[in-house]
Amino acid sequence: MPQKVRIALDAMGGDFGASVVIPGAALALMRHSDVEFLMVGDSAQINAQLDAHPALKAVSRVIHADIAISMDEKPSQALRRGRKSSSMWLAIDAVKHGEADVAVSAGNTGALMAMARLNLRMMPGIDRPAIAAVWPTVRGESVVLDVGASIGGDAHHLASLAIMGSAMARVLFDLERPTVGLLNIGVEEVKGVEEVRGAAELLRAMNPPQLDFIGFVEGDGIGKGAADVIVTEGFSGNIALKTAEGTARQIAEYLRSAMSRTWRSKLGYIFARGAFNALRDKMDPRKVNGGVFLGLNGVVIKSHGGTDAEGFASAVEVGYDMVRYDLLPKINQTLNRDGHALSIVPNPQEAVS
Amino acid sequence: MPQKVRIALDAMGGDFGASVVIPGAALALMRHSDVEFLMVGDSAQINAQLDAHPALKAVSRVIHADIAISMDEKPSQALRRGRKSSSMWLAIDAVKHGEADVAVSAGNTGALMAMARLNLRMMPGIDRPAIAAVWPTVRGESVVLDVGASIGGDAHHLASLAIMGSAMARVLFDLERPTVGLLNIGVEEVKGVEEVRGAAELLRAMNPPQLDFIGFVEGDGIGKGAADVIVTEGFSGNIALKTAEGTARQIAEYLRSAMSRTWRSKLGYIFARGAFNALRDKMDPRKVNGGVFLGLNGVVIKSHGGTDAEGFASAVEVGYDMVRYDLLPKINQTLNRDGHALSIVPNPQEAVS
Repeated sequence: MPQKVRIALDAMGGDFGASVVIPGAALALMRHSDVEFLMVGDSAQINAQLDAHPALKAVSRVIHADIAISMDEKPSQALRRGRKSSSMWLAIDAVKHGEADVAVSAGNTGALMAMARLNLRMMPGIDRPAIAAVWPTVRGESVVLDVGASIGGDAHHLASLAIMGSAMARVLFDLERPTVGLLNIGVEEVKGVEEVRGAAELLRAMNPPQLDFIGFVEGDGIGKGAADVIVTEGFSGNIALKTAEGTARQIAEYLRSAMSRTWRSKLGYIFARGAFNALRDKMDPRKVNGGVFLGLNGVVIKSHGGTDAEGFASAVEVGYDMVRYDLLPKINQTLNRDGHALSIVPNPQEAVS
Repeated sequence: MPQKVRIALDAMGGDFGASVVIPGAALALMRHSDVEFLMVGDSAQINAQLDAHPALKAVSRVIHADIAISMDEKPSQALRRGRKSSSMWLAIDAVKHGEADVAVSAGNTGALMAMARLNLRMMPGIDRPAIAAVWPTVRGESVVLDVGASIGGDAHHLASLAIMGSAMARVLFDLERPTVGLLNIGVEEVKGVEEVRGAAELLRAMNPPQLDFIGFVEGDGIGKGAADVIVTEGFSGNIALKTAEGTARQIAEYLRSAMSRTWRSKLGYIFARGAFNALRDKMDPRKVNGGVFLGLNGVVIKSHGGTDAEGFASAVEVGYDMVRYDLLPKINQTLNRDGHALSIVPNPQEAVS
């Protein structure tokens, strides 16, 4: 691998800005030495942090930006205030101008999506963006999309999600032909909404060599790892993701309270501490941090705003993988063959405008 | 409480029919002595089971039905074959004709909903049914609806779900004015679909004295117990419910495998067995079995098809509570005051026809 992966970071993004972004980048660098960084944001803050990480400093270039988008700014407001000048915009801009291969931000989702869309534009054949998440399952991991970029969408939109998600699964999981399932509900007779049934017909008709469409998957199939890629529109996808996160936290709380109830359970906890640590590790949300924006002419990764350095490093590593293993070429490869079927996508309501 | 609660059971419903339904009813009777049963189905099978439960037999009347609806029958097929003659239909029919206060079936959801709708008809002011589930949370329990009866729906439909769900929460949790949240996604700016925002405006305008509308709740708010009642349309509600079930099973599997890995963790498990049993109890899906069909002129409860006697007993007890604590009068009480706002509900696509 001759070339380095060049990663632009919105150093001001997230709840903690440079104090998490820079240490996170340092962790990612320890795991991938073939990386260079563009650090975008307040140069004084960035340099102060970089001084503590000389190895990172040696592979980083700082681009000063006066404006930082706040976490509660509306996308329209963020665009008015920060277009062409904010750290978020300039990180994306580096991708657009070929100075970076990927941009990573822990800033607010709506603003990041709006800026990415306006600056990078949609890929030919795709006209609505998606956010894909990596979802831990009992079999390993699956790609789930859309987890909140676009609400609703017709059969063509869902089919385009299937294509983009399968490209991502090929990159992440090193699979030739990932299995793809459409999220649906199990009520008999109708079996879900018209668009979902239409997408199933479309995917069966297209039968792309890069993905293996296996049909419908219900909500409980996600955690089972019923398919490598689970496709749904952004409203239900976001609800599924958040509900799963909530359920995991709820059970963790039950477990904590159960283990601290009696001296026997406390003793049991001490003996089984290794097992609990392994479990905690397995359920650690930081390990799966990094939503991938799909459908754009460029790779943009969204980190959770409230994450720590370890979590931010995960998001950086997702970006690294997407570049190193050719996400965009792989999406294009499938789209070019099946682009025709997807070129007639209408324009329903969107979550982020 | 002078009158007994009269419960009609579809004794043929579910994966195991009378062999689960009758023992389940016997368990429910042990917890509520003020109950009478109508057992509908193959009388030979029912009587054979009743012989093992003399106390139950003493408060049961058997109604013979030749036809049993199977779990994979389509609603239309079930109606053609089983209308007026199946155990499922006749159990509902007993409610219609005032011979029972509630019908409970573990039979297939689509067929049960189709028959309940055709026979009992919708309440005035409501024209689409819903299924409500009881969802365990860290604070206790919440009512979540619709978990799969009707796909999509406008602001009025969502507001009617809020009214029916809050009546159910008043019944189940003995609350004067349950809090109600609309399930939504957290993308900035637009904050979810038009219908959800419309429902929020409607609920704020109506401000019914029987419920306290608290605004939007995201998926991770359900498990936190962010509101006593969580309202969403049937597609996303079903996905949320199944995703949570899947996540709980997934974590239980992680936990099992973590605890059996080393001798230390196995020893820890032995010491903490009481805590694990408490946890298992807390996560036991049988304890929250019993989906309530809402919007009909009568109370119908759907049990999971694959449950055991303990689970079926839970469904029977949900039915008991709904009758004993006046679900239908409480829904009507709210509807009569606010019926006007809800009387203009159009007719979007439905999952069960």
